[in-house]
Amino acid sequence: MGKNNMKEVKEITNMDVDFAQWFTDVCTKAELIDYSSIKGLYIYRPYGYAIWENIQKILDERFKETGHENVYLPMLIPESLLKKEEDHVEGFAPECAWVTYGGSNKLEERYCIRPTSETLFCEHYKNIIHSYNDLPKLYNQWCSVLRWEKTARPFLRHREFLWQEGHTMHATSEDAVAETHQMLNIYADFMENVLAMPVIKGRKTEKEKFKGAEETYTVECMMHDRKALQAGTSHYFGDGFAKAFDIMYSGKDNQLHYPHQTSWGVSTRLIGGIIMTHGDNNGLILPPKIAPVQAVVIPVAQHKEGVIDAADELVSRLKKAGVRVQIDTTDHSFGWKAAQYEMKGVPLRVEIGPRDISNGECCICRRDTGEKQTINLDILEATVLKELDNIHAALFERALENRKKHTKVCQTLDEVKNFMESEGGFAKTMWCGEPDCELKMKEEAGVTSRCIPLEQEQVSDVCVCCGKPAKKSIYWGVAY
Amino acid sequence: MGKNNMKEVKEITNMDVDFAQWFTDVCTKAELIDYSSIKGLYIYRPYGYAIWENIQKILDERFKETGHENVYLPMLIPESLLKKEEDHVEGFAPECAWVTYGGSNKLEERYCIRPTSETLFCEHYKNIIHSYNDLPKLYNQWCSVLRWEKTARPFLRHREFLWQEGHTMHATSEDAVAETHQMLNIYADFMENVLAMPVIKGRKTEKEKFKGAEETYTVECMMHDRKALQAGTSHYFGDGFAKAFDIMYSGKDNQLHYPHQTSWGVSTRLIGGIIMTHGDNNGLILPPKIAPVQAVVIPVAQHKEGVIDAADELVSRLKKAGVRVQIDTTDHSFGWKAAQYEMKGVPLRVEIGPRDISNGECCICRRDTGEKQTINLDILEATVLKELDNIHAALFERALENRKKHTKVCQTLDEVKNFMESEGGFAKTMWCGEPDCELKMKEEAGVTSRCIPLEQEQVSDVCVCCGKPAKKSIYWGVAY
Repeated sequence: MGKNNMKEVKEITNMDVDFAQWFTDVCTKAELIDYSSIKGLYIYRPYGYAIWENIQKILDERFKETGHENVYLPMLIPESLLKKEEDHVEGFAPECAWVTYGGSNKLEERYCIRPTSETLFCEHYKNIIHSYNDLPKLYNQWCSVLRWEKTARPFLRHREFLWQEGHTMHATSEDAVAETHQMLNIYADFMENVLAMPVIKGRKTEKEKFKGAEETYTVECMMHDRKALQAGTSHYFGDGFAKAFDIMYSGKDNQLHYPHQTSWGVSTRLIGGIIMTHGDNNGLILPPKIAPVQAVVIPVAQHKEGVIDAADELVSRLKKAGVRVQIDTTDHSFGWKAAQYEMKGVPLRVEIGPRDISNGECCICRRDTGEKQTINLDILEATVLKELDNIHAALFERALENRKKHTKVCQTLDEVKNFMESEGGFAKTMWCGEPDCELKMKEEAGVTSRCIPLEQEQVSDVCVCCGKPAKKSIYWGVAY
Repeated sequence: MGKNNMKEVKEITNMDVDFAQWFTDVCTKAELIDYSSIKGLYIYRPYGYAIWENIQKILDERFKETGHENVYLPMLIPESLLKKEEDHVEGFAPECAWVTYGGSNKLEERYCIRPTSETLFCEHYKNIIHSYNDLPKLYNQWCSVLRWEKTARPFLRHREFLWQEGHTMHATSEDAVAETHQMLNIYADFMENVLAMPVIKGRKTEKEKFKGAEETYTVECMMHDRKALQAGTSHYFGDGFAKAFDIMYSGKDNQLHYPHQTSWGVSTRLIGGIIMTHGDNNGLILPPKIAPVQAVVIPVAQHKEGVIDAADELVSRLKKAGVRVQIDTTDHSFGWKAAQYEMKGVPLRVEIGPRDISNGECCICRRDTGEKQTINLDILEATVLKELDNIHAALFERALENRKKHTKVCQTLDEVKNFMESEGGFAKTMWCGEPDCELKMKEEAGVTSRCIPLEQEQVSDVCVCCGKPAKKSIYWGVAY
């Protein structure tokens, strides 16, 4: 990189010096986010929102392919409705923002802005589920929710954030459990094959599960700083909410039954995950499948005759090939532009100047590795498409390597403690299943349970904490 | 129609007897909407939401083609921020829902749930607009807004409704005015060529314009009951908000200037417009371009061998041709199914039974006219695509006829009064421009000004109300 772009790049804190500050720098300098005057309520800027739109488009297609329908339910929940399921209200009431006035009139009952919509869906389901013919109901909602948390960080912890929440009702427990797993698998597949983020699929412990759920399944990812990100969850509720809300259907047997319920969600937190999985000291690196701009064409010596025309020609060829492509013909220097699109994580930069034109060539530069290749224009589309695939694969490999390198099988609490204090990462151990041991791990080693992986592996015979016989393997880590 | 489906259809009130009840019946029986426990907060059910998704998809494409970018801003506005522009807060404060508690803590300042987002966009624009290079900013947001109104009706007046709000900033007044007109034209074109709703484009009077705007442009439609629906608006703000929010940019002249602003929006009210423009006593009639299901295939005598296979074959052929198609193989009677899809406004019904199969034919029935034709299977795709176009054209023609038939040029207030009392519709008159005359029209003839049409026509020389010389033609009507 030339001197010109050093100035721009310097503005990002080095990630090895201060990872948290590096993250915030990327969020603002890559123009993903801006602050509003209310803490924890952020502005999703066009570039950040476009990433979310690409995520939405792909996930929404997968939800619809599996029979789900989108709906939109109100943003307000009457306090009495929220209180109908005991565990649920205990979990969410402390984080509710309450509406108490409509215009100048005090409301008779206060309403909270939805922190999640289980109660609203149950109220609606009670109206529309009567017979086994009405099941399953497979609904999803794209919306924002609000949780009045004390701390806030862009993408990772907003008070208001964008998400999708699936809410489904099934005739039998088996159907609901199958749905819970199906959606977990859709999330895992999406994260790995679209976002290039390797995941561990697992079950949450009693302590970490969603309030009101019987089981919570999760996909856990390791970030570049070796902390864990819970990237998506899928809950099985049994018939607890159905009982609390008195939802019943008449079965083929002409008897009344309670339906079984699930919910599942991912949020704009995924964008935080993308940044912290793939980014580097030059800024963001976007996985090609959700990058708003997959390739940027930068003309070299653009004042010379024919250069901009030749660059435009590349743009229209790549557009035709289905590539999301942009050109930059502003007055900024080439160096500034190069640094700018590196910061914004555009996967490929295509350069073309007078010499390239006379050689019938252009130069293609990869954001993830910095590798440059000069290619004949004949193979432009094929090369760009191939390199986008290569970048996806390389990003995934690098993230997987990072996770493997920083996952350690530990036999004792001391070993976990030493591991977390020295390098940190995921500690994989056996666990007896006792909440007391889970608590002790938190108190003494500073870790929380991430998940009991679906792919179990007997890494010892005894619990890492109490030494008693143990049959479950579990991951521990420090979470965002 | 056979006896079987009469029962279903009877559940809809006759529109000539009680149009308002007919409308509500269609909203609920066609499964577009459900009620929540809070007045004015409705549930958009899958079929209703799918119409909105189709509207979104087409409009969003048109916004992006014209250079607009999507963003997402917070749902809460601090009271102090809302108060920065005087006219604006006067217009909206009485309708704000106020958040006063976060968890168990009383907030230092109360926040309103956005009734519209001009103030939030201005706050953000102040952060990101510094130089002429930063202009124009062409932003749009898809979200829900909340207005605590006293009355509520599905789609027409929700307390919470879904919409899009464009907010743009321009270097000059000319650019902003051009944007205001561009967006009005996009709306008008969309409503006519996608929703088959003929529109009148015009300017609002001082009294009827948006609070804080210099000019409000509108597209007005006539519903089947001859009332007016304001279907979309586009506002020019001048630099009023920019001054109130202290947004300035340095121009090419190195001087500081205020940018000029617009906003424009349409909402799920459009779905109310579709229902009331096209529906009939059998239920909804959907314009093909936004119908979630454009054609439903119903097998006749489906228990007979080969019938369902033949019907499935039609479905997969139509899918391949790009038609949104569904099949109904449930146990309901043919009559029930026919009535059900009529109620839901599916534009085409395709029937196939044993006799059709042996003849190599199927039967196609139009929702709007009830016309049936038996066609050779060879021309299935071509016929279906052609009929979808024909239905769009016929719906538009019928709505235009309705408007023409019920628009009357009037010369005096008495004439307007008689017209509104006898048949009702749009009264087209001249107007001197005085607010007093506008008020008198409301008091004595019960009409509000709909718009000063962009296509002016001198229908007399004097004001319909005061008799003084008048140069503006104007539409009056009763509005939803």
